[in-house]
Amino acid sequence: MSGNSFGKLFTVTTFGESHGPAIGCVIDGCPPGLALSEADIQPELDRRKPGTSRHVTQRQEPDTVQILSGVYQGVTTGTPIALLIKNEDQRSKDYGNIAESFRPGHADYTYWHKYGVRDPRGGGRSSARLTAPVVGAAAIAKKWLKEKYGTEFAGCMSQLGEIEVPFESFEHVPSNPFFAATSDAALIERMEDYMDALRKDGDSIGARIDVVARNVPVGLGQPIYDKLDADIAYAMMGINAVKGVEIGAGFDSVAQRGSEHGDELTPQGFVGNNAGGVLGGISTGQDITVSIAIKPTSSIRTPRRSIDKDGNPVMVETFGRHDPCVGIRATPIAEAMLALVLIDHALMHRAQCGDVSVATPDIGKA
Amino acid sequence: MSGNSFGKLFTVTTFGESHGPAIGCVIDGCPPGLALSEADIQPELDRRKPGTSRHVTQRQEPDTVQILSGVYQGVTTGTPIALLIKNEDQRSKDYGNIAESFRPGHADYTYWHKYGVRDPRGGGRSSARLTAPVVGAAAIAKKWLKEKYGTEFAGCMSQLGEIEVPFESFEHVPSNPFFAATSDAALIERMEDYMDALRKDGDSIGARIDVVARNVPVGLGQPIYDKLDADIAYAMMGINAVKGVEIGAGFDSVAQRGSEHGDELTPQGFVGNNAGGVLGGISTGQDITVSIAIKPTSSIRTPRRSIDKDGNPVMVETFGRHDPCVGIRATPIAEAMLALVLIDHALMHRAQCGDVSVATPDIGKA
Amino acid sequence: MSGNSFGKLFTVTTFGESHGPAIGCVIDGCPPGLALSEADIQPELDRRKPGTSRHVTQRQEPDTVQILSGVYQGVTTGTPIALLIKNEDQRSKDYGNIAESFRPGHADYTYWHKYGVRDPRGGGRSSARLTAPVVGAAAIAKKWLKEKYGTEFAGCMSQLGEIEVPFESFEHVPSNPFFAATSDAALIERMEDYMDALRKDGDSIGARIDVVARNVPVGLGQPIYDKLDADIAYAMMGINAVKGVEIGAGFDSVAQRGSEHGDELTPQGFVGNNAGGVLGGISTGQDITVSIAIKPTSSIRTPRRSIDKDGNPVMVETFGRHDPCVGIRATPIAEAMLALVLIDHALMHRAQCGDVSVATPDIGKA
Amino acid sequence: MSGNSFGKLFTVTTFGESHGPAIGCVIDGCPPGLALSEADIQPELDRRKPGTSRHVTQRQEPDTVQILSGVYQGVTTGTPIALLIKNEDQRSKDYGNIAESFRPGHADYTYWHKYGVRDPRGGGRSSARLTAPVVGAAAIAKKWLKEKYGTEFAGCMSQLGEIEVPFESFEHVPSNPFFAATSDAALIERMEDYMDALRKDGDSIGARIDVVARNVPVGLGQPIYDKLDADIAYAMMGINAVKGVEIGAGFDSVAQRGSEHGDELTPQGFVGNNAGGVLGGISTGQDITVSIAIKPTSSIRTPRRSIDKDGNPVMVETFGRHDPCVGIRATPIAEAMLALVLIDHALMHRAQCGDVSVATPDIGKA
Repeated sequence: MSGNSFGKLFTVTTFGESHGPAIGCVIDGCPPGLALSEADIQPELDRRKPGTSRHVTQRQEPDTVQILSGVYQGVTTGTPIALLIKNEDQRSKDYGNIAESFRPGHADYTYWHKYGVRDPRGGGRSSARLTAPVVGAAAIAKKWLKEKYGTEFAGCMSQLGEIEVPFESFEHVPSNPFFAATSDAALIERMEDYMDALRKDGDSIGARIDVVARNVPVGLGQPIYDKLDADIAYAMMGINAVKGVEIGAGFDSVAQRGSEHGDELTPQGFVGNNAGGVLGGISTGQDITVSIAIKPTSSIRTPRRSIDKDGNPVMVETFGRHDPCVGIRATPIAEAMLALVLIDHALMHRAQCGDVSVATPDIGKA
Repeated sequence: MSGNSFGKLFTVTTFGESHGPAIGCVIDGCPPGLALSEADIQPELDRRKPGTSRHVTQRQEPDTVQILSGVYQGVTTGTPIALLIKNEDQRSKDYGNIAESFRPGHADYTYWHKYGVRDPRGGGRSSARLTAPVVGAAAIAKKWLKEKYGTEFAGCMSQLGEIEVPFESFEHVPSNPFFAATSDAALIERMEDYMDALRKDGDSIGARIDVVARNVPVGLGQPIYDKLDADIAYAMMGINAVKGVEIGAGFDSVAQRGSEHGDELTPQGFVGNNAGGVLGGISTGQDITVSIAIKPTSSIRTPRRSIDKDGNPVMVETFGRHDPCVGIRATPIAEAMLALVLIDHALMHRAQCGDVSVATPDIGKA
Repeated sequence: MSGNSFGKLFTVTTFGESHGPAIGCVIDGCPPGLALSEADIQPELDRRKPGTSRHVTQRQEPDTVQILSGVYQGVTTGTPIALLIKNEDQRSKDYGNIAESFRPGHADYTYWHKYGVRDPRGGGRSSARLTAPVVGAAAIAKKWLKEKYGTEFAGCMSQLGEIEVPFESFEHVPSNPFFAATSDAALIERMEDYMDALRKDGDSIGARIDVVARNVPVGLGQPIYDKLDADIAYAMMGINAVKGVEIGAGFDSVAQRGSEHGDELTPQGFVGNNAGGVLGGISTGQDITVSIAIKPTSSIRTPRRSIDKDGNPVMVETFGRHDPCVGIRATPIAEAMLALVLIDHALMHRAQCGDVSVATPDIGKA
Repeated sequence: MSGNSFGKLFTVTTFGESHGPAIGCVIDGCPPGLALSEADIQPELDRRKPGTSRHVTQRQEPDTVQILSGVYQGVTTGTPIALLIKNEDQRSKDYGNIAESFRPGHADYTYWHKYGVRDPRGGGRSSARLTAPVVGAAAIAKKWLKEKYGTEFAGCMSQLGEIEVPFESFEHVPSNPFFAATSDAALIERMEDYMDALRKDGDSIGARIDVVARNVPVGLGQPIYDKLDADIAYAMMGINAVKGVEIGAGFDSVAQRGSEHGDELTPQGFVGNNAGGVLGGISTGQDITVSIAIKPTSSIRTPRRSIDKDGNPVMVETFGRHDPCVGIRATPIAEAMLALVLIDHALMHRAQCGDVSVATPDIGKA
């Protein structure tokens, strides 16, 4: 209820702060009988971890995950799975200068007003570092969804600041430091130059991320409030720095006519996917397509006007190690949140309606 | 858990279908001691009700609300408040032709796959008619928030299809059939002609709606998952036909630099509101600003390809009474959802942190 | 969260007060496809309703139930089922004398302290009349459990004040006004005389009720907190006037040795049922056996010392219509609560573990 | 939802198995600003830990607690508090003989049927060892309740098998190995002999535990389902081996008359406490009094009939280290559960009704 659990039936409760001894989570509700070891989880954490290129924070964290419970002889037992990730590279002194004042655009101000106390080391609880445990938990969700329904996830950065990245194929995503779905080397180089210039300026930039889930069973979603798209919006807007969420045609729907937007059906399936795989809050069996807007990092070296705790004017410059574009590492996080929403709805669906069919219908594969 | 309750502490559970005997809701968690009668609720329902202009559905529903419980001698008692609204103008035969096939872009297909059975009369449970009870419940939330914190809500349509509506003042919203915040009579006439043409074509159109909450206390929001903006996104995406949600700068954040996006602070308050009143998932005390994209109505007279329950190809034309732009009546609904999110977070905040200060700080009024 | 919903997946949210216009509930999460009409519900309400003998309250309420939603063409649709029961025989003046003071042993005192306001008419929300909607909801649960697993419920009064009622057979329960599982006419007459004497004295008495569920699937229960027996205890202790709950051997376990208490297993099943059908918080497939202690009615004609709202001493005598033994009508209520717990756990179980087998194993039928 | 979280607003999610690497919990919803360190928690864990006398299990566990998050500079921050307790003395081989068969009276049978897999080492998740994290969490709850309302907890064993322990004073509880509230050395010696004889017999015994909370604010409880006593019953019945729960007069209420049971009020407070501090599901401000029945340990050396996983008859003798009376260490656990219920209801109350008064009224101190 205090907001640190995600999901109702596959419930992930996270804990930890950026510079505490450890971060982690407890996953309650994982179905029993799933083969599971750390090796299933680590690759997803590695996709998200810091320090993998010069365009992200240089904090060195191996993000090695340890399973503390819920698995016996390599199989989930249906009891809570606890994941532990130790913080290895805390340098709290880097953040000393921001303990008494509030970074513009940062949670400093609101945490202090809400709780009357805050852990300023690396953003404390509000740090994007806290997405690591959910990425770990989602690795388990992805594995179960894959085995049960063949569901798969993919994502990419489709815009970096002013630079749009035309979609080519998800297969290119691992081949560049931006999760860009392109093989256009010149475009990648342009993005690298763009980021280098930003770092030099002591500034940061926003990004747009697209994620998709394929082979989703028909029927997931609990209208009329816990609609699948409502829960996806909740999950995505809850990721650090996200300011906008679209499903399917998103804001383009505003200027569409009904005769254009509504995806027709034929015996071979849907013709088009303006719906983004969700109608009436329930999955159609088509790909679920989601886009999110990520704001620029608020911790920048450029001096900015702010106030201190006593309300006095100050100038704030943030040193320390920060991602100049938090959007870069957001793709695996957005995929993770989508996976957590889907497994939760899969379990909710079978609670009320019984087990969903393993295969999606032939229609809906447009 | 099955999705028909909204809110965790101010919990609204709705029931009913478009053409059943009645719709309504139970509100659990309303603070005791609030003066309340039907007269506090009816005006909000009247803003949303059908039949108020030729541009919305012609179904005639007075939407008269009755309080069945939870109020004694004109004051809330802290026990559940049940609201009942009778359906007066059911014409189920209008919908007979869609019982066996699926309207493109409509929940017909997914409800049938999910539940194996569906009530086709007027869309059954998936009808936008079901937003009436939440508008009623939100009238109570609005009253409490106004009395407690001075919080107020406003909203308008900012785009109708291709027609953008420049914001002038919320005071003009009640003076035209579109909830447009403009006094530009020529623009309103253009919108009327646009809608008339659409109806003639048997087609429909999307819209963009903006809503705002003012005088919001600092500190509402339960990071790191039940962030205020995450719950707003959930609430908004759950409204019928919504495909996109933005908070503050929204998708414009993608191309913004950190030095531009992050709202600076001075002793006089925030300078700008790219944040939309939320930082780190917690309210800043500034206005909360939200935009949503509403897709065009899926029930249109234009013939469209679809399939029947047996998978055979059919052409679907939807007669009966429908809003040609569901966005028109969406403004009071979006305000209602925002109010429900805020009261829920206000109660959650005082659970954990004690009562919030009645006045927002001077800063944050930029 | 404010306590007026019961169950997590088969969620019953009730509303109403003893003397308001109506009482009722919304059931969210009922599986779709269940044949259902008012005729399935009314018989359970009739078992509980007042006025059926001289030993219970003489308030005349037909307790006629109306289904407002969630059923289409005689089948549940998976959407919320609203039940409405009108209050027909309110006589609020009967209770005028208790509006300003607190009946000893009654919720008057605590409701007033908690909420600062209370509806004194007939006990308002705290009246046992509010068990009617849950009995209605449980009729649906019972029907589904019966069809799905063959689960059946029975209950009886096993003690009325000092009078113990030896168990003979549940078939005798409907044949006497006390829900006694006996065919001993002399015993029944003794109970009638006992009740007549109590009424003459203007006093009331407690009772002990036993309920049982048969043909319960193995595996229901969500340890380690939402154990099946924990939720049963919650459900039972939440019934008006209940002060004690036992599962299986209950308090007799205190003086038992492990070699006596632990039910042995043979290939033919369990030998004994000290467990009451629950081990480790999970159903064994044996009968679930529960006993509850019901305190004597607090509203009695005998004058008693109390205070008024200003803290002044007063004498309180309660006139009006009251059950001299609330335990008499408690049997169908206790069965109802047990049924609601079981359906909720059946749905939770299939969320995490998939569908339970329809048949209980041969073992466990001891 | 899968049952491993306790509490709605002060939510404790536990993880771990008896013989895994570690056990622990995440506490979400702790109010910020509470001074807290491991030194506040360890003493409660020490009261519960094994190996403190020859009458409990000889497993050697220091149960040293480590706070991983949620505390900064010695003060709670309002973010999740993770507690970690390492398992030091696992000897899994001791339990090898029970991996393939089911101990009578034990969760072996039901876990295996529910999940299709189970961790047999020391009872896995069903072990009473898993009460350690909640005792740790409750130490935090107790501290907050003490500081906020002056609430205090106490408990004792009032019956060991056939031996009743007359209540003298809680001050004697720490002075004997049984949590007995007596200074009667002869009685303690009798209990020691009784336990020694049991161990020699390879058998076990039940117990009765009484717990009390003092200085409880008036008004806690969320009727009509989340009544304070309903949640207490849930909490207590959920403790390992509990088969019965009583509040106040409990089962004695059955034979009481209304004129005897209902606690009269005078301007000086309640006269008697048959209610056990709860009326209508809401705290009265009086002491909350609870009794529980604990069954005898199911793991005993005495050979017993059972079956193996294939349904074949076997004889089961359980060696390894077990408490011959799990009731002995149950007192701090029962206190802990009561504290967790009270803090949760205190937070729920202030969500809906605002902050409760720090002092309980003078009345209600009878």
